[in-house]
Amino acid sequence: MNYIVGIDIGGTSVKIGLFDTNGDLKRKWSILTNKEDNGKYIMKEIYQSLLHKKVNLKNVVGYGFGVPGPVVSGTVLQAVNIGWYDYDLALEFSQLVGNSNVHVGNDANVAALGEVFKGAAKGKKDIAMITLGTGIGGGIIIDGHSIEGVFGAGGELGHIVVEFERPRQCNCGSLGCLETIASATGIKREFTELAKSGMYKTFLKNIGEPSAKKIFDAAIRGDELSNEVINRVAYALGYACHMVSLVVNPEVIVFGGGVSRAGEFLFEKIRKEFSKYKFYAVQKTQIVGAELGNDAGMFGAAYMVANA
Amino acid sequence: MNYIVGIDIGGTSVKIGLFDTNGDLKRKWSILTNKEDNGKYIMKEIYQSLLHKKVNLKNVVGYGFGVPGPVVSGTVLQAVNIGWYDYDLALEFSQLVGNSNVHVGNDANVAALGEVFKGAAKGKKDIAMITLGTGIGGGIIIDGHSIEGVFGAGGELGHIVVEFERPRQCNCGSLGCLETIASATGIKREFTELAKSGMYKTFLKNIGEPSAKKIFDAAIRGDELSNEVINRVAYALGYACHMVSLVVNPEVIVFGGGVSRAGEFLFEKIRKEFSKYKFYAVQKTQIVGAELGNDAGMFGAAYMVANA
Repeated sequence: MNYIVGIDIGGTSVKIGLFDTNGDLKRKWSILTNKEDNGKYIMKEIYQSLLHKKVNLKNVVGYGFGVPGPVVSGTVLQAVNIGWYDYDLALEFSQLVGNSNVHVGNDANVAALGEVFKGAAKGKKDIAMITLGTGIGGGIIIDGHSIEGVFGAGGELGHIVVEFERPRQCNCGSLGCLETIASATGIKREFTELAKSGMYKTFLKNIGEPSAKKIFDAAIRGDELSNEVINRVAYALGYACHMVSLVVNPEVIVFGGGVSRAGEFLFEKIRKEFSKYKFYAVQKTQIVGAELGNDAGMFGAAYMVANA
Repeated sequence: MNYIVGIDIGGTSVKIGLFDTNGDLKRKWSILTNKEDNGKYIMKEIYQSLLHKKVNLKNVVGYGFGVPGPVVSGTVLQAVNIGWYDYDLALEFSQLVGNSNVHVGNDANVAALGEVFKGAAKGKKDIAMITLGTGIGGGIIIDGHSIEGVFGAGGELGHIVVEFERPRQCNCGSLGCLETIASATGIKREFTELAKSGMYKTFLKNIGEPSAKKIFDAAIRGDELSNEVINRVAYALGYACHMVSLVVNPEVIVFGGGVSRAGEFLFEKIRKEFSKYKFYAVQKTQIVGAELGNDAGMFGAAYMVANA
């Protein structure tokens, strides 16, 4: 039996999935991400883990990787959390396993591919995905392939500028990026600042630093302050959806990441904001939640091999 | 000798170019766009014009078309100025000429392909083009192919919402679209309204309705009001460039259309506005003027055949 190996490299752990050539996940496990010496042992440890798990490399048709940073043609331009700079991952891993069929993509792009392969956008041709976590990532898939971008920044939707009145500094250097508002970090900060202003009622008092989850739960239960925060999040995400739709006009926009667990309560608000933009074709784009959760990266990594 | 025919259909005229298979333009001419009976005679008249010009159809390897409206898989969804709705142009023309190698794209997308083929973005892999005319069109080219979009709205950059404080109604139904500010129409309206306000000095008085060209010329000569208008145009275009760059991260953004004849005076201002957005990869995107002028559509139409 032939296999595809899909690997999702994160700052904390490396998720490894063994797929059959139809893309069905047969086994999965994870190892810790060894960040020593700028991540120079990671490829070797993945290789050793495959051997340790008795994967017969002769039966592996190809390997896919998602990595946390921009990628161009198999080379990781930078993965700050790991310490890789201009790192030719495809070449290095190819030599270790003796197989040149190695594909590498940015983690957010690869997660989007996963949702196309086996998730919320299954069978769709053109999609966008927005991943709402500590930061905000994004991926654009056209005809089953992700848009890498000339400098590896295709789909970097977290840095769309959406706030002009009271823009906050973003890590990227710009002011008012989507990430400053709609990431878990942004939601918590907005809540804390609006709480100080005393303008909105809330029953979430004296809870120290609130989590995005607590704020969503309170919003669902009618908390005024929490709803104000979430409405601003929904406005910003609706605007981002409109923007993406005018550039690449996808059939569906998928929301993933921890914050998206708020589910339909959030998606309904985003759809309402999105519907305020009237350009005819854009109105037809669907907004849905991701389905594969933390496995999306592995599935997408496998898809790069299956769809090469 | 083998030929490619590149055809650019506009609301007033149809431009027809005869190219060799390397994409060198050998002959070109135009015919009037016959809009009678919802444009039902246009294909036939193009066919007859080719015969009239003694083009040996047996030597034509393929035909490309740019049309003023959204296109999906060879079908024109709508071309309001002509009267086409759900019009299978590729099929109809294929039958007339007895050749199934017919490619159809939206005019702005096709113009962008032309600039990639033989113009300002020659040899570039990923580009965006923004066409500043009476309205604003756009095209996104990735790996030499335009992003059509699921509903034919890929690259509809004129409808990015860029104005929030004093947004104007756009024809699309939204408020504050790029087109309401940076099209020739938008520039003239902005000038007229700001002139009424009396807030800015101008030596362009009593000239009736001013043209975009007159406003640019006056701005270059230091006119305060004209510069205020152009600075707003540049801000909006800089914002749009940054937005497009985060979605598809092109190597170059090409400005075409009548308003872009303002040249470096305008491009320098756009670059300055664009440089205010700090996300690293985006900063590397170049902003340049188009090179092919009104021929871009014919070249792009030919490119669809050459690059199929």
